[in-house]
Amino acid sequence: MSARIFPTAQDAQNAFYEALERGDLEAMMAVWSEDEDIVCVHPAGQRLAGQAAVREAWRQMFAGGPNPRVRITQQVVIAGVMLEAHSVHENITVASEAHPRPPMVATNVYLRTAAGWRMIVHHASPAPGAPAAESAPGAPKILH
Amino acid sequence: MSARIFPTAQDAQNAFYEALERGDLEAMMAVWSEDEDIVCVHPAGQRLAGQAAVREAWRQMFAGGPNPRVRITQQVVIAGVMLEAHSVHENITVASEAHPRPPMVATNVYLRTAAGWRMIVHHASPAPGAPAAESAPGAPKILH
Repeated sequence: MSARIFPTAQDAQNAFYEALERGDLEAMMAVWSEDEDIVCVHPAGQRLAGQAAVREAWRQMFAGGPNPRVRITQQVVIAGVMLEAHSVHENITVASEAHPRPPMVATNVYLRTAAGWRMIVHHASPAPGAPAAESAPGAPKILH
Repeated sequence: MSARIFPTAQDAQNAFYEALERGDLEAMMAVWSEDEDIVCVHPAGQRLAGQAAVREAWRQMFAGGPNPRVRITQQVVIAGVMLEAHSVHENITVASEAHPRPPMVATNVYLRTAAGWRMIVHHASPAPGAPAAESAPGAPKILH
């Protein structure tokens, strides 16, 4: 679909979070490998494997609500020839919410394909005790 | 410390879960890369980075309780030259508990080092809706 080429894994990651912020399903799926062996785990969700399951979950997420702002911090990169693993904290804010959410921790794995670097694994989970989680006095608890 | 060599990423993974089942801290840490850029996320925990933090968390976990049995299912492998990513379901049972726990989903990343394959990322999180969670008698069924 998309002719966009990501020369580095970091380029693919930037495009991933841009698509997430915009709620742009086609841009999101253009970041992923076209392989069937793709894996996506949303926070507190079950594992999704394969193009159809991954796409449908993003479609539902993007249909569901206001677009978040995502600031990436504390990145650790492990780089191979064909694969790169990035471990990051996702600091998510939503305009309609008074307080920043506690950070998510994400493991992102990228594959070098004939069409540039693409995402192959995204695994995100809440990091409840992480330092950036500020508790305001009397702040409501996070409900899922 | 350990002279054990893992010729494949799968060998490293097998040793990882064996060490976890035995609660063997030295065997566990011998599976990990000796690099400082190692990342471990335990279920519902914050991200741990570096040798000292990863080791201390395993030490506490192994000191804390009965050793679990872990059965790995639904593995997806993405293999590169220097890195491999394995996505698995961890089906954990503890002898003193009447029912199996719901599965964890884990992303394991392995690095090919001069001393064989080693773990570099372990990210585990609960997969509450996952298929392997068997419903006890009387539990509500999903009807279509």
